[in-house]
Amino acid sequence: MKNLSTIDGVIITELRQITDERGSVLHMLRCDAPEFIRFGECYFSEVLPGAVKAWKRHRTQTQNFAVPVGRIRIVIYDDRIESISQGQLQVLELGRPDAYLRVRIPSGLSYGFTCISVTPALLANCTDLPHDPTDGELRDADDPAIPYSWTLETGMDSNA
Amino acid sequence: MKNLSTIDGVIITELRQITDERGSVLHMLRCDAPEFIRFGECYFSEVLPGAVKAWKRHRTQTQNFAVPVGRIRIVIYDDRIESISQGQLQVLELGRPDAYLRVRIPSGLSYGFTCISVTPALLANCTDLPHDPTDGELRDADDPAIPYSWTLETGMDSNA
Repeated sequence: MKNLSTIDGVIITELRQITDERGSVLHMLRCDAPEFIRFGECYFSEVLPGAVKAWKRHRTQTQNFAVPVGRIRIVIYDDRIESISQGQLQVLELGRPDAYLRVRIPSGLSYGFTCISVTPALLANCTDLPHDPTDGELRDADDPAIPYSWTLETGMDSNA
Repeated sequence: MKNLSTIDGVIITELRQITDERGSVLHMLRCDAPEFIRFGECYFSEVLPGAVKAWKRHRTQTQNFAVPVGRIRIVIYDDRIESISQGQLQVLELGRPDAYLRVRIPSGLSYGFTCISVTPALLANCTDLPHDPTDGELRDADDPAIPYSWTLETGMDSNA
């Protein structure tokens, strides 16, 4: 799974974890990273066990996700009409220590995530543009246009 | 405590927590925040219960701290020779929901932190310059030049 994306423009990067008996230092994003565009905003999305936050799609904003706490399943769907990977669906699990990854999701892709750990997870996001409520489109978690069922995967009600 | 700093240049800002039954969205930093300088790096420091990470001082880098998970006590000491608040020590507790704050610490100040929650805490930092090992100075947690005892406060061995 690591460093492999089946969707055009998605970049998966292994992040450094500097182990320390007092607690690890966990890299996220530097301004000199090859895929860094610009800094728009940093925020966190807490996800409670079993909860689903899906689907979202941005017109212009790029996401850079990492999961420093807990474990999250992210699903990305390419419904861009002119994409070479149009119709592709990618499922990724993010969490320490084996999958401490940064996932860059360019604009135009649909994505959602769920917490698959028994304790709350924290998804961190460093975007290239600050939050603009007119930039994001929301769809129901059970929207039939996307071939993925959160209900089957989580065993929980997926109404977001 | 909130929005009050006794040390020149330290800025404490209350951050927005957008409550959601699936997990909250937690603001950290936007590029259009009044005190935003530039983006250097975003990283996380996990701090295990009772562990102390102290003391650190940067020559040029500015820190922007927030604590989205667990609870942390941060201590800042002004040992800048020409500062109007030289000799001041400030102790802050950061954590949700009552103290979800961003603390900006300019270069030249000494700071350290400890986890005061029973579960691990996560300190997030958005700096204005990427990490440069020659920029930071480390001192022992029990350095007598700083009038603060981590041992007394935490009841634990403070050797960092």
